[in-house]
Amino acid sequence: MKPSANAHLIGRSDARQRLLTPSLIVDLAALDRNIAGMQRLCDQHGVALRPHAKAHKCSSLAARQIAAGAAGICAATPGEAEVFANAGINDILLTSTFASEQAIARVVRVRAGGARLACVVDHPDVAERIAFEARRLGVVVPLLVDLDMGRKRAGVAGPAEAVLLARRLQECEGVEPAGLQAYAGHLSHTWAFEERKAGAAEAASRISAVLAALESEARYTPARITGGSTGAVLPELAGGLYTEMQCGSYAVMDTEYAAVDPDGSGAPMFAPSVFVATSVTSANHPGLATADAGEKRLVSKYGIPPLIARGAPEGSAYAATSDEHGRITLPEGASLAPGSLVELVVPHCDPTINLYDHLYVFEGERLSEVWPIDARGA
Amino acid sequence: MKPSANAHLIGRSDARQRLLTPSLIVDLAALDRNIAGMQRLCDQHGVALRPHAKAHKCSSLAARQIAAGAAGICAATPGEAEVFANAGINDILLTSTFASEQAIARVVRVRAGGARLACVVDHPDVAERIAFEARRLGVVVPLLVDLDMGRKRAGVAGPAEAVLLARRLQECEGVEPAGLQAYAGHLSHTWAFEERKAGAAEAASRISAVLAALESEARYTPARITGGSTGAVLPELAGGLYTEMQCGSYAVMDTEYAAVDPDGSGAPMFAPSVFVATSVTSANHPGLATADAGEKRLVSKYGIPPLIARGAPEGSAYAATSDEHGRITLPEGASLAPGSLVELVVPHCDPTINLYDHLYVFEGERLSEVWPIDARGA
Repeated sequence: MKPSANAHLIGRSDARQRLLTPSLIVDLAALDRNIAGMQRLCDQHGVALRPHAKAHKCSSLAARQIAAGAAGICAATPGEAEVFANAGINDILLTSTFASEQAIARVVRVRAGGARLACVVDHPDVAERIAFEARRLGVVVPLLVDLDMGRKRAGVAGPAEAVLLARRLQECEGVEPAGLQAYAGHLSHTWAFEERKAGAAEAASRISAVLAALESEARYTPARITGGSTGAVLPELAGGLYTEMQCGSYAVMDTEYAAVDPDGSGAPMFAPSVFVATSVTSANHPGLATADAGEKRLVSKYGIPPLIARGAPEGSAYAATSDEHGRITLPEGASLAPGSLVELVVPHCDPTINLYDHLYVFEGERLSEVWPIDARGA
Repeated sequence: MKPSANAHLIGRSDARQRLLTPSLIVDLAALDRNIAGMQRLCDQHGVALRPHAKAHKCSSLAARQIAAGAAGICAATPGEAEVFANAGINDILLTSTFASEQAIARVVRVRAGGARLACVVDHPDVAERIAFEARRLGVVVPLLVDLDMGRKRAGVAGPAEAVLLARRLQECEGVEPAGLQAYAGHLSHTWAFEERKAGAAEAASRISAVLAALESEARYTPARITGGSTGAVLPELAGGLYTEMQCGSYAVMDTEYAAVDPDGSGAPMFAPSVFVATSVTSANHPGLATADAGEKRLVSKYGIPPLIARGAPEGSAYAATSDEHGRITLPEGASLAPGSLVELVVPHCDPTINLYDHLYVFEGERLSEVWPIDARGA
């Protein structure tokens, strides 16, 4: 793990003003409120919460979610599954399909290493190849049927293909059927509540059709039906089909998720807990300042700029304008001196967090811990 | 440094087909041709080449550029300067301004550690603060006057401000004037040659005006005038003002630089040497395949998609469509089986390389070395 340039500030209550920038901060109280809030919501619906760790790539944060009641975590890549398993997180669902010989070998090795790891699959031939490797290593890999929810990205196309695949999983030694994944990712940033509600209803009828076909044609009743996202969690829970929610971004949040109206009220359910600390490097023009967080430090997916959380005059705006630099546009008459610290709410959480090696854990102004973002780049 | 998941393939001549994906590959022969080509061009003009290492963030690659004749390297951030100095690269120009107390302390510490490090500055107050820290550590920091070339991002605004700053650098103990930086970054992706040529001429007259003022009003003749970029190198060399070129992307190249016509002929001067290896994870729909390199693995700055270099049928196209996935659109009747390996030319080199921890060095099909991207995230 890379050494942290700010580790010497641990325990200091002026640390937040003394960070080398750009750095990634987590406000522990805000994080814990988000973790507890989503857990409570899932508990109320009798649905397991398996947070997606692709959002933060940090095993310390994942362990905190599990301690608060999560059933385990989701991983997006074989590399993430490997890192989290090595970090001692022992209940992992790998939510992306994988098919190269070397990826299959890697994933089955993680399972053979003792991790409680389940995976998804969307083609009988790939299932056969996973089974072959599993038999070679003397293990059984639980596989969920991955269902395409309309994006044509991964998943079986519909009920007939789901039935064929489920039968193969039932027959094939080395793997076992372990449920259905139905991740309607397109809903997470469907901005308007009514539109998202309609999308969730359409998704539910797609899932129901597949469940009926699996039941009648493969005599298979998936005990686990997994999916869901922070943006669409309310209608997805209301649908009553999922047994497990995969929401991830709720823990950290960002300006783009904050722009999703969760329930038609316009009031957000979760608050940002992760911030980028940046500092002014240049300010030679009236009304403008340049800071050290650019496109190598902030990623937007939907073109929404980062929000300034503190350190700049009310009415200032931030934009990542080049690789290494951001531009602060100041209100009339205001200025920011070179060296000033500014904190930003990240525009889109998970590709942004993926740019940093450390998460600086703050309790108020005090730096209490440094969490390695250990699955970064994995 | 993170362990490499493909290190066991070193020395194998089937390694290129056996890489865990997504991974970043460098073709050593293509890299060396680019390095030699830019060095020759600068040598012919009697101008030093100081490649910008922000493009690759890899000290092994930087050392190769220096071995081929480069005068040293440029770094974009205090963290990069620190990593490269620790890796034994002993002639570094930090090309971005910095102003926070902790950044100043970090940079002066690198200088005090024995590195031949020069920096840029754009405000007398910041120069004073650097000088104060330098005196505290008993060193002298060479500072170049940074000139704004029109972007209002960093740099003194014009001749009068340059003169004031140069005078301060001459007077102030702990720092010394070390030249002029005039980086016209906006020209690097001015696509049409004639427009770029006109821009370079305008930049040259801006530089000349500042040089004249420094000479007459501060009795200062900068021995070093540094700037330049891969996209605009020919008109910038032709201008005859620079003593040092900072080009960086030429070594690795990408589809977006390849779209810049270097000299009006339309023929590229450099060829891509860095590629992303990805593999097909899903292919359940005719005409489409999904691969494992998405927006966490490929960054475009100008909206130009990655180019497929090998592994997919002629006429296929690639787009990073979500965080973890890319979509391959196949020509009529073609297909790609799950598990197939595909290599891509990256859309924009430096934010893309910044996503990876290792560069797999290939001599043809043989993996000869693994270079850590040691300044990644720094």
